[in-house]
Amino acid sequence: MKELFLYNWQVRHDWYQWCEGVPEEELLKKRTGGVGGILETLFHIIDVEWSWIRIMHGKPDFQEKFEEYNTLERVRELDAVFHQEVSAFVQNWEDRYEDNVVPDVEGIEWEERYTWGEIMRHTIAHEIHHIGQISVWARELGKKPVSANFIGRGLGNAKG
Amino acid sequence: MKELFLYNWQVRHDWYQWCEGVPEEELLKKRTGGVGGILETLFHIIDVEWSWIRIMHGKPDFQEKFEEYNTLERVRELDAVFHQEVSAFVQNWEDRYEDNVVPDVEGIEWEERYTWGEIMRHTIAHEIHHIGQISVWARELGKKPVSANFIGRGLGNAKG
Repeated sequence: MKELFLYNWQVRHDWYQWCEGVPEEELLKKRTGGVGGILETLFHIIDVEWSWIRIMHGKPDFQEKFEEYNTLERVRELDAVFHQEVSAFVQNWEDRYEDNVVPDVEGIEWEERYTWGEIMRHTIAHEIHHIGQISVWARELGKKPVSANFIGRGLGNAKG
Repeated sequence: MKELFLYNWQVRHDWYQWCEGVPEEELLKKRTGGVGGILETLFHIIDVEWSWIRIMHGKPDFQEKFEEYNTLERVRELDAVFHQEVSAFVQNWEDRYEDNVVPDVEGIEWEERYTWGEIMRHTIAHEIHHIGQISVWARELGKKPVSANFIGRGLGNAKG
């Protein structure tokens, strides 16, 4: 489980670096598909990742608006704050948590009680999917996207 | 490991169904990002998935061209053929295969010997990434894309 989170974090940080070479108006420009544009989609990814980690512990999810975080610097800062909690959870993941069931959370009406394993995979796939969308927008800007390769990132022995 | 493959297969089949409602010229149209267009990217996904499964066993990868498979029907047929081998491998996956190292394969010069675990995760991420690209193109066509959600697909207890 852990390896695909490590992959997502590497790729996301590569994208932050990529964003450094792109004018802010292009990062903020509304685009087709995804969530708003490049930076808002990155914001959405970190919001969703953190929110699900919180929800598994019965804590309320993130409710703030992108308008409060609409610069690359602020998104990175928010990521750094959230990452402490997210990383601690992922690094301490154990297979026996797989079938834990999502608890009651204020403000959420569960139609179905997802398992923790299901939520972890949802979070992984969610980020990869949105990064794929950003890669199309990168090409539309005439720029080479960040590599989406999992191989070649030194993640072959991330177990334990 | 298995769950994210099951997810990819479900999503891919949802996309085949989605394609049924789209004119063939739109499926074949060259687009920005991804691999060629919608149908060629789907073809690429199944090519890459099958090729890596073969490579782990020291067998040569898929070398055929999209031009031989450029209808939805042919892509689905190819998928069905490949799926037998892919599915058997994934369903029989065991954690002890994680650190197996990719063998010699005719025609490939390895710069680095990837582990089987690494290759499996590469294959998973590869598909999700490309599906994200297709979802942008769907919106460009004015159509709602297939859901990328992992939750809600009954994949919470796919272990074992």
